[in-house]
Amino acid sequence: MRPEIVLFGDSITEQSFRYGGWGAAIADTYSRKADVLVRGYGGYNTRWALFLLHHLFPIGSGTPPAAVTIFFGANDAALSGRTSERQHVPVEEYKENLRRMVQHLKDCSPSVLVVLITPPPVDEEGRKEYARSLYGDKAMKLPERTNEVAGVYATQCVDLARELDIPSINLWSKMQETEGWQKTFLGDGLHLTPEGNAIVYREVIKVFDEAWLSAAKMPYDFPHHSEIDAKNPEKAFEQLCLGM
Amino acid sequence: MRPEIVLFGDSITEQSFRYGGWGAAIADTYSRKADVLVRGYGGYNTRWALFLLHHLFPIGSGTPPAAVTIFFGANDAALSGRTSERQHVPVEEYKENLRRMVQHLKDCSPSVLVVLITPPPVDEEGRKEYARSLYGDKAMKLPERTNEVAGVYATQCVDLARELDIPSINLWSKMQETEGWQKTFLGDGLHLTPEGNAIVYREVIKVFDEAWLSAAKMPYDFPHHSEIDAKNPEKAFEQLCLGM
Repeated sequence: MRPEIVLFGDSITEQSFRYGGWGAAIADTYSRKADVLVRGYGGYNTRWALFLLHHLFPIGSGTPPAAVTIFFGANDAALSGRTSERQHVPVEEYKENLRRMVQHLKDCSPSVLVVLITPPPVDEEGRKEYARSLYGDKAMKLPERTNEVAGVYATQCVDLARELDIPSINLWSKMQETEGWQKTFLGDGLHLTPEGNAIVYREVIKVFDEAWLSAAKMPYDFPHHSEIDAKNPEKAFEQLCLGM
Repeated sequence: MRPEIVLFGDSITEQSFRYGGWGAAIADTYSRKADVLVRGYGGYNTRWALFLLHHLFPIGSGTPPAAVTIFFGANDAALSGRTSERQHVPVEEYKENLRRMVQHLKDCSPSVLVVLITPPPVDEEGRKEYARSLYGDKAMKLPERTNEVAGVYATQCVDLARELDIPSINLWSKMQETEGWQKTFLGDGLHLTPEGNAIVYREVIKVFDEAWLSAAKMPYDFPHHSEIDAKNPEKAFEQLCLGM
């Protein structure tokens, strides 16, 4: 059976199969090679996501995933005392929750490729505009997320990956390398535009390529149609049929 | 575990996770409710696809798919004696091959929802332009596919669905209801533009909604984040934990 790649995260993962989404692009790249499953939970922080862990990745399952992206932090980093405070998780706990996720996945399968992705940067002006579009003058004047705080979470995420010797993607830094990242990559100051999705896609593929999960090096599941002899199609499938 | 929806077909299915693709849109709609797996094989006709059937859908598997779309015919309908003749399958055989696919899926699981999708219409002018862009003056003057012949295959596909009392989507007819379908829905005279993908998506969702697989009526796999009490998150997950 083909390997499974699971995308585990919050709304940025849940929305990754929308128009131009990074999840769909990964599924396209691994078509005929691996299955891509989306496990995105809008609004979830790492504390709540831990409740799902054993359900999504049961220990002793005969078919654990080959690779998992863990992409949380955007909600954990919501500020205490502001509109989204119920989602807030202190940064130390965020790091420990991520550690528990990685440990659990390794317990499921020692060979699993786990990739940690940091939260994206926050365009505070974009968040304010978004809040005003929803609540008008009733919108809180103070931002519920700041870019600086998101950066603190991103650093902890990358540090943990280094500690555990697993790959990570510092999306917070990466996006800010491009001038105008605020509007180019973020739609409402937090969620990704198609261009923002393209960055995540490119970075994930880069990590997979550097590990043992390069789509280009994986065989097709079945013969390419050009290898099939129209007069004698059985031949191309002989090997498979023997295994039936 | 959540139900699986499998998209089985040729290149139009294989490409369904590209930008604006119908497969990705279905995966997005069923996010947190069902998994969507792509089993698209570019260039394949139904004769070759039969070799894959037992591998993709093994009898006696503990987890057969809940629904399968079968979307072939565009290659079967390639004309004999023209550039793509190696892909040609006579229309009677096409119909019988589809029947064997449906029968096999029902053998795997009597409750499986099978949806037959006809080939799309062919824009002969678009195909010619595409051939010229590839081969210049060496391009064959005669089309390798005609819209009329694709229509014959579409009719057999829909007839079979009626015979077997399963749902079908007559994409060949549906697309031609829109003026300018040739360029609006088809990129190279055969493969789908984002607008063409949107039609397939809409029609598949309509069929799923009318059957028992309406995403709107399916529960979320886990609580919506707004149902989680931040002070007592355990409560929202209690039910799940009991089942652990």
